[in-house]
Amino acid sequence: MKSFAIIGTGAVGGLYGAWLVRAGFDVHFLARSDYHHIKSNGLQIDSKNGDFRLSHINVYDTPQTMPKCDVVIVSLKTTSNNILADIIPHIIKDNGIVLVMQNGMGFEEQIAKIVAPHTVFGVLCFVCSNKIGPGYIHHLDFGHISIGQYSSGAKPLGITEQLKEIGKAFSQANVRVTLEPDLKTARWKKLVWNIPYNGLSVVLNTTTDLLMQNTYCRELVKKIMQEVLSGAIACGCGFEESFIEKMMVYTDSMPPYKTSMKIDFDQKRPMEVESIFGTPLTVAKNAGATLPLISMLYCQLKFLDESNMA
Amino acid sequence: MKSFAIIGTGAVGGLYGAWLVRAGFDVHFLARSDYHHIKSNGLQIDSKNGDFRLSHINVYDTPQTMPKCDVVIVSLKTTSNNILADIIPHIIKDNGIVLVMQNGMGFEEQIAKIVAPHTVFGVLCFVCSNKIGPGYIHHLDFGHISIGQYSSGAKPLGITEQLKEIGKAFSQANVRVTLEPDLKTARWKKLVWNIPYNGLSVVLNTTTDLLMQNTYCRELVKKIMQEVLSGAIACGCGFEESFIEKMMVYTDSMPPYKTSMKIDFDQKRPMEVESIFGTPLTVAKNAGATLPLISMLYCQLKFLDESNMA
Repeated sequence: MKSFAIIGTGAVGGLYGAWLVRAGFDVHFLARSDYHHIKSNGLQIDSKNGDFRLSHINVYDTPQTMPKCDVVIVSLKTTSNNILADIIPHIIKDNGIVLVMQNGMGFEEQIAKIVAPHTVFGVLCFVCSNKIGPGYIHHLDFGHISIGQYSSGAKPLGITEQLKEIGKAFSQANVRVTLEPDLKTARWKKLVWNIPYNGLSVVLNTTTDLLMQNTYCRELVKKIMQEVLSGAIACGCGFEESFIEKMMVYTDSMPPYKTSMKIDFDQKRPMEVESIFGTPLTVAKNAGATLPLISMLYCQLKFLDESNMA
Repeated sequence: MKSFAIIGTGAVGGLYGAWLVRAGFDVHFLARSDYHHIKSNGLQIDSKNGDFRLSHINVYDTPQTMPKCDVVIVSLKTTSNNILADIIPHIIKDNGIVLVMQNGMGFEEQIAKIVAPHTVFGVLCFVCSNKIGPGYIHHLDFGHISIGQYSSGAKPLGITEQLKEIGKAFSQANVRVTLEPDLKTARWKKLVWNIPYNGLSVVLNTTTDLLMQNTYCRELVKKIMQEVLSGAIACGCGFEESFIEKMMVYTDSMPPYKTSMKIDFDQKRPMEVESIFGTPLTVAKNAGATLPLISMLYCQLKFLDESNMA
């Protein structure tokens, strides 16, 4: 597990990729709109863990020119996932693996149609990070990740040897890693944060700190988190209720933060409404759970996304 | 029932007051910020039923200078209701009555502490009307009203003689009138429109037509209306479910309309969040009904109102 290909050199892929470069791994970045800038200037990381610049990195604008790698990291916006089938086969070694470093739900299934299902892993990034310019990433806080192996069957695969190996690579890059025996549950847990903060920050045109300071919204955030938990339970992915309080405390401790969905909205890019809201709602519904608050937030975001893209 | 005092010469009080003037009634308008303009220029009504101007009207800037009238119409924003106790006693005849021409719930109870409870009536205006300048009102559509008598006891008072007399006065002013035997139920029915459209138009920064054209929001509007009905039922104020479809059709037939709450928000005035959302939620809760979608909308509006007023 020595070479990495990063599909999407943004706030997440750029940051973790840069940390892997700094740890001595062989990393190859695929970029689109920022390609020329990164080719000339490399990557600049302003991080609370220490700023650094990588003046020259291996950057590409087409997958055809990239070397085949041991690990492919998918860190695109999920709204562009339709291009993955044309990219991954070009850049993955025969025994390579795919790490899906995206928010929401439903894409491991898609990627398991492109590569062998047992080579797909999900990575959840608990990180406050924004791309503030081409090849320029501001890491505000946190950074630990959870990794779990995708299971095409009903049962989670537990903590496999391969999972441990991936964890080791990130640990070498100074990233704190949790290995998750059950990726589905891990994805539901991540939604406890993503659903209320991404959704409400767009609908109410605000940042996480102001949501938390307002008595009404603070209570609403908590209710929405409880609804995520009830969806998870319906899907057999329940977790301890104390995790909700933990996420509230975690958010309280953050600097004022603009969520990724709010940034997409402000920059008139499509929002990840389907992967963060639509798919979890469908999955929960199929398991018999209606989630009224999240459904309402979904409708509100669909309206705003359509208006914004019109 | 010959003389009328209008407290609040805006989109609603100005319009119905002007129609009463035109029908030959003796009408006295109390105005605040628009007083000087109306004193010099009168009222201009642009209406789909016919434009007209009243060059000179009886307008006052303090209740002390107004004559005592048979009927006091309260058409202030509910956010200013705290001033009513200092106004009404100056301008109402001994055997006078009060018509509360406001949106939401909870104010007949307040006014019944200022005057005798049996002299209080509620008026629901099904009208699209905007104040587009001082003394300048644009009546876009509809205009019929429902009137019911306030009951301080558990039972509605039915259609009393006094109610009929009020209805007759408005009929003479060419206003279509429905007499409501049960004011509480009538107020819940009016909320079927006010809650979804006022709330969502502010949160989603839009107009009624665009909400109705969007598949997701159209469905959401309907779900919120159904929640209003379930609140009404819990309070013993149920009505036929077909009323919901009627309100959808009614809104479809409207011209693109900016709700009063959206206008208040855009003009950085306090919104009627408590009377339209807070009080009905409390009343429903006391009757054992939790209304999750309306509660969420309430939290969102409280956040936006506080941000807007900061």
